[in-house]
Order: sequence, then structure tokens, then C-alpha cells
Amino acid sequence: MQDIYRYIDAHFDEAVALLTRLVRQPSVSAQNWGLGEMADLCVTELRDAGFPARRLDLGAAPALVIGEAAGRSPRRLMWYSHYDVQPAEPLELWDTPPFEPTQRDGKLFGRGASDNKGDFAARLWALRALRAVRGELPASVVFLLEGEEESGSPNLPALMRQYGPLFAAEAGLLEASGVSQDGRPALTLGVRGLLYIELAVRTAVRDAHSAYASVLPAAVWRLNWALSTLKAPDETILIPGFYDRVRPWQEDELDALRATPNEEETQRKEMGIKDFLGGVRGLEYHKQLLGRPTCNICGIQAGYNGPGLKTVLPCEARAKLDFRLVPNQRPEDILEKLRRHLDAQGFSDVEIHPIAAHEAPVRVPISDPFVGFCARVSEEYAGKPAIIHPSSAGTIGVSAMADVLSYPMISASGGAGYWGSNVHAPNEHIRLSDFAHAIKYHALLLQRFAES
Amino acid sequence: MQDIYRYIDAHFDEAVALLTRLVRQPSVSAQNWGLGEMADLCVTELRDAGFPARRLDLGAAPALVIGEAAGRSPRRLMWYSHYDVQPAEPLELWDTPPFEPTQRDGKLFGRGASDNKGDFAARLWALRALRAVRGELPASVVFLLEGEEESGSPNLPALMRQYGPLFAAEAGLLEASGVSQDGRPALTLGVRGLLYIELAVRTAVRDAHSAYASVLPAAVWRLNWALSTLKAPDETILIPGFYDRVRPWQEDELDALRATPNEEETQRKEMGIKDFLGGVRGLEYHKQLLGRPTCNICGIQAGYNGPGLKTVLPCEARAKLDFRLVPNQRPEDILEKLRRHLDAQGFSDVEIHPIAAHEAPVRVPISDPFVGFCARVSEEYAGKPAIIHPSSAGTIGVSAMADVLSYPMISASGGAGYWGSNVHAPNEHIRLSDFAHAIKYHALLLQRFAES
Repeated sequence: MQDIYRYIDAHFDEAVALLTRLVRQPSVSAQNWGLGEMADLCVTELRDAGFPARRLDLGAAPALVIGEAAGRSPRRLMWYSHYDVQPAEPLELWDTPPFEPTQRDGKLFGRGASDNKGDFAARLWALRALRAVRGELPASVVFLLEGEEESGSPNLPALMRQYGPLFAAEAGLLEASGVSQDGRPALTLGVRGLLYIELAVRTAVRDAHSAYASVLPAAVWRLNWALSTLKAPDETILIPGFYDRVRPWQEDELDALRATPNEEETQRKEMGIKDFLGGVRGLEYHKQLLGRPTCNICGIQAGYNGPGLKTVLPCEARAKLDFRLVPNQRPEDILEKLRRHLDAQGFSDVEIHPIAAHEAPVRVPISDPFVGFCARVSEEYAGKPAIIHPSSAGTIGVSAMADVLSYPMISASGGAGYWGSNVHAPNEHIRLSDFAHAIKYHALLLQRFAES
Repeated sequence: MQDIYRYIDAHFDEAVALLTRLVRQPSVSAQNWGLGEMADLCVTELRDAGFPARRLDLGAAPALVIGEAAGRSPRRLMWYSHYDVQPAEPLELWDTPPFEPTQRDGKLFGRGASDNKGDFAARLWALRALRAVRGELPASVVFLLEGEEESGSPNLPALMRQYGPLFAAEAGLLEASGVSQDGRPALTLGVRGLLYIELAVRTAVRDAHSAYASVLPAAVWRLNWALSTLKAPDETILIPGFYDRVRPWQEDELDALRATPNEEETQRKEMGIKDFLGGVRGLEYHKQLLGRPTCNICGIQAGYNGPGLKTVLPCEARAKLDFRLVPNQRPEDILEKLRRHLDAQGFSDVEIHPIAAHEAPVRVPISDPFVGFCARVSEEYAGKPAIIHPSSAGTIGVSAMADVLSYPMISASGGAGYWGSNVHAPNEHIRLSDFAHAIKYHALLLQRFAES
């Protein structure tokens, strides 16, 4: 593989230029901003690299992009990425504008540099390098690029029902795992589920002078009290039956968690916090991070929040919540239980608006042969044994794909990001050295896949 | 007085033009917008009417404006108004722009038309009419115009300490009472106190991906739980000792409340609510409105509240609260008890930032002779007995004035607004017919004051 690696190093500036073009195009799915342009750009970049590609449209949904690369071996691997990004707000906390990719200190800053345009750029460049040096690809690849992962992939189920057969393959690679602090490669075998909702309360047809707070109902208080029935200060989620379907850890999963490096101390310092919830460390940290379902408030807003004071009684209040679910919880089930709970607590006036599609949690068993293959490739590339994460803490639209595609899909090493990439936060960035490794890793993986 | 009233009717367009000029000048104290210009405009209007006037400055505080009008009788009345207004947000709910005064359906729309530029315009025009017809004023008047009432009058204590002696008088009239639904005049003998604070929580140095909600502390939840310890869903305020100093109703106050017309049904319909808190009506409504101290959330904000979804764990959350206090509660005392309570409940991490000056509740006894005088004038003008409100539900900076000025200050009839004026809300307006009555009422009141 040294010839390939040398080519990648020699042409690294071109790979960075590719990623820079991708980051420069805003593509915020939550704000419906730039998605069509971004899909077209992905098609263009794939074609420029010599691979047939096209948009797969369905109504007004952000298009899927498919790009196919035939190789010598008929074996075929699916590579999933998403071309949309999280909103960049709050903009004032960015040192350089989020959609003006900027290099400094060996890093590339910009929204999506890590999550997830960096992966797509690394994979595409790996193919260019293989073909430039070898004249052909060792095996076939099909890219599946999605345009609203950051919005919970509301249209992915329908898109997969329509176009799923085009993505036939033997196995799939999801968003790549980033680099761990000790440099070991990592595999992630699943995702948590996601239920994303907005709670809304309206208590009058208009705001009132706050002097009337003695006699008028208050939307913000209603919302506050309703929220307080959902989670106790000790972090217990109070919705009856919420934990009923939570599957206990399997023994091989616990073994994997025990072998996971303890990098949480770095995270703790970076976040400037004294302790994690419950004061957990080590194995307990990993069990809690991956195994404890959440009820998180992403946003809350009501009334006047400008400078100074306004003595107002707001008639309306809203909060956005996300629940991260673990096997075998089901989002539909939790949504039902939430409604029932709010009604039982006297909060029928609190409306629940689901935002985006529900995502069920998904995990590939540690015993699956594709897990073993990826672990071996990762160890060969890095010279160190791979870390195996039974699940990601996060969520991508795996369940919509798993419903249609019958092959195992996991997230393997070779991500462009690292633990300090600030994904979903201001000043998102990657280290350029990680980006070079990501390209090389994907080239090696496809080579070994053809041989396996 | 018919000659005066005829003059007022004949020149009514000029009075409306005066008010229009005042409303057109934005003067939002919470946003420090247009206050200097507004103070200058008040001085100009007073001088144009022939009355010596000037700004009384103190450092960077919005200036007081004093305007003096000497009359035949040496008796002197103080007329208080404020030239600042509430923020106009949310702007999209206004049918016409808040600072472009617009007449339609016999009404004048614009921020401040009722609260409180309408009163100042009516009073100033009453003096013009008296002097135009009689050649002199029957008694002396001193205007006290304040520029940050809507921000809790943070500088009024210092301004009063500096300039208080200039406002020597026998009695004072505060913001005028508006017109009640049955057309009876009204006197208001006091105000509730006000403690306005911001609660702020920060749990990390930056926002995180919400996938980490299993292990990272959450500012929004901390704020939510802290708020829930302040007030129960049955509206009981839970801060220990909060109600300790609440004085029971006096018998003559209860008599006044019993004689108060029951206009709450109109308010109920206008707000589009099924019931008032506790289902109160009649006497119980009045007791609750004026006598029950409040803990109201004026605004709350954290995280992402834009369209679609963002899966974020916010590191910071804020809420603005106002407490309306009743005799003999003290804002400093409540603030201390709040801090002690939050600490005791485990919320030392929730910071309390007072906004603006504290206002103590103030009430003039029903037995004060000036109350009787105003009641008689009101009855003479309206032909109906006056309604006596022992207190307003709201707050103006009376305590800062009462600390320095030794005479009784009450709010008497003759306000330009009415019960549907949308004060502090979009589409604030007055009925022009009420404005004409307000002018006539103030002319009569000054005449009778000279004779009394």
C-alpha cells in the first residue's frame, strides 16, 4: 500500500481543496438552506473523480446522492455519509465564519469539516488515489449520501423504500469513527434511537401585562411544571414505563466497554465541568454514556429575553426535547407513554409536536464477521488493536436503512474528526493529519475487502 | 367649565397632533432607545405651550423633565408621567408599526398612546385650554416626567434625592386611571412593589452534542428544577417566609373592593381564557388581583429555538422573573429569602441578577382628604360615583418618590386609556373619545383644586 500512501501524501493539497469546496457550501437541513446546491455539488465532485453519480429525488425531500464505482472484484461495499450539517448558531462564538473554511495550526475550521463532509471527502479521495496508482479499484463501492441526517432523516424511510435496491452490497460503512486520544482505531456497532419533539403551551390569545399574573394562567409556568414531571434532579426519567424495554448489557458488550480507553478526563476538562453526572468514571462512564437513555432539553423559549426588563406575562411557551433511546426502546412507544403521562399529570394542555422521523436504536452484534474484518483492517493500519464500541452515543438514520438493507452496517475507523472536533458546536474543525490518515485507511480497507 | 370644554372640543385635532408627535418618537428604556430625544421633545412641547421646562440630568441616567406652570392660587399640584415606553416586540403582531401613530375606527394606535404619553398630552392640553380661555391657570402645576418607569426606575431614587425639592407640592397625581367598562371614574391609591431579577445557570464552558446528555450536566434542567421549587402548580409561592409580611385587608379596603364593578368577564373573553386562576370572580377576583403577590416568568431562553431540530445540550440558561409585592413585603427581604431558598434547595449554581431598582409597595389610606377631593371631582365630571381601588395591580416608581416627597400621591381618573388598550402588548391604542374626556377632566380637577 506504500505506493498508494505516497500518492495520497503527494496530492494532499488537492484532497484538502476538495473538502474545502464541500464545507464552503452551506447545507443546513434544519434551516432548509443550500441542500439542493449541496446535492449537486456532491454529484459534480463524484463525476469529476470519474464515478457515475446522480441525485435520487422524491418529492420535496432533500435528494439522496448515489455514486457508484465498479472495481475488479464484484464484491461491493456501501459507504454512507450525509451532506447536511447542523445549524451554525450561535454565530458570534465562531472565531472564523462557519462557511468560510479556514486553515490554521494544522487544522481546518468550518461547519461540517468533521461532521460529516470530512468522511465523504476522505473516502472519495481514497478511490481517486487507488485508481490513479493502480488503474482500477480493487472492489466496488456505492456511495449513499443523505441530506437531512442532522434533522433526524424524516424522509429517509420513504427514500429507502423507493431507492433501497440501488444500494445492494455485502456490508456497509456508516459515518466513520473519529480518532481516539490514544491513537487506537475504533469501530462503532450501533446507534442510539432518537425521539425529537417540541412541547408547546398556549394559555391565552395574547400576552398580558405581568401585573395580571395573580389571576391569569401562565404558559411558561405550565411548561416548567410539565417539564419537571419528566425528569427528577437525580436524572431519573419519570415517565411511567420509560425504562421497561431497556435491554441489559450483554457480556461481550461489557468486555468491549472494559477495553475502551478512558478518555473522559479530557472531555471533562474541555467542558470545564467538575464531574460527570453521578460522578462516573471508567467503565461506569461508558455504561452511562451509551446505555442510559436521555431526556434532554435542546432549547426553550418564551416571552421577552432582550436587554433590560419587560414586565410581561407570555401567553405561549415552547421547548425542544430529544430522547436518546437504547435497545430495545421504541420511539413510538415512548411518544405514547409521554402523552399518557402528561395527561395523567394534568398537562393535557401541553401539546407534543414530533419533529422529524423517529429513529429506533440499532446494534450489530459483536460476533458479526464484518466486525472482525473491520477490526483486523483497523489494527493493520494503526498497528494497535481496535477499540470496539457496542454503540455510539449519538444517532444517525440507521434504522431507516436497516429496515430495507439486509447487510450489517457499522462505523469503522478512518474518520476525519477527533475527540476535540467541536461537532454540533462553534469552531468545528479537523486536524489535517487525521484527514490524511482517513484517506489512507479507506484505501487500505477497500483493498483488503477485495481480498477477504 | 362649559367654555373650557368647548375650547377643548374645537381644538381637539391639535391635541391629537400633540400626542401623535409624542408617540412617533420611540423611547424604549429597556433598549436605551430614543430617551434623550424624547426628554428634549417633552421640554420643547412644554415650552411651546408657554411653560418653563428643562431637563434634570444626573450622570448617564435618562433625564427627569420638570415643567412648571404658575397659577393664580399658590396651591400647587404635582403631575407625574413617564415618557418612556415598553419594548414593542413582537413587532410582527402589530397591525401598524408601533412608532407610526395611526388613527382608525376612532382610535389612535401606537406604543405609548395609552401608557403613558396619552396622560401627559391630556394634562398639557388641559393647561393650554385653561389659559387660552381664562388667560391664566387657576392653580400651579409642576410636571414630573420620568424616563425609565418601564425599566423599574433604577435611577429614580438618586434623581429624587438630587432634585426632589423642586417638586414641592400639596399633593400629587400619578399615572391616570383609565376608563372602566361602565364609564365610572376611578381612583387608585397605591401600587404593588416590584422585584425584577434574572436567574442564570451555566454548567459548562460550551454547548455539547446532545448525545452526551447521559453524562454532562444540563443548564436548562438546572434552571427548570430551580424554578419548580419557587412556585407550585396550585400557585403557592414556595420560598420560605415569602408571605410573612403580607398585611391583611383593612375593612375600608374591602368595602372599596366590594364596590368595584366586576369587569373581569370582559378581560376573560379578551384573553380567550376559560377561567381565572382559582376560578375567582367578583370580590375574590379583586382580592386576588391586588392582594396576592406574584412570581411571574417574563422570559426564558436557552439553546436552539430556530426551525427544525438541533440536537444540542446548551451550557447556559436564563429566565427573567418579576415578583409583584403587596404591603408590607419588602423587595430586599424577598431577594434575600430567594437566595437562601435556592441555596437550601441545592441550587447555589443558579445566579440571581437583580435588574433595575427594587420597588416597595405603597398605599395612601382611603381616609386621606386628597382621596376624598379627587373622588368628588371625578363624580362631578362623570356624574357617577368614583370607584376606589386601594391599589393598582401594577407598579410605578412611587416608592422612590414617596421616600422624598411628603405629600399623598394617587392615580385619579382622566387617563387616556381604557380597559382594552393593550398596554405592554402589541396594538396598544386609545379611543380618541377617552382622550377628549381626559383633557376635560384634568382642566376641571385643577379648577376645583384651586377652589378647594
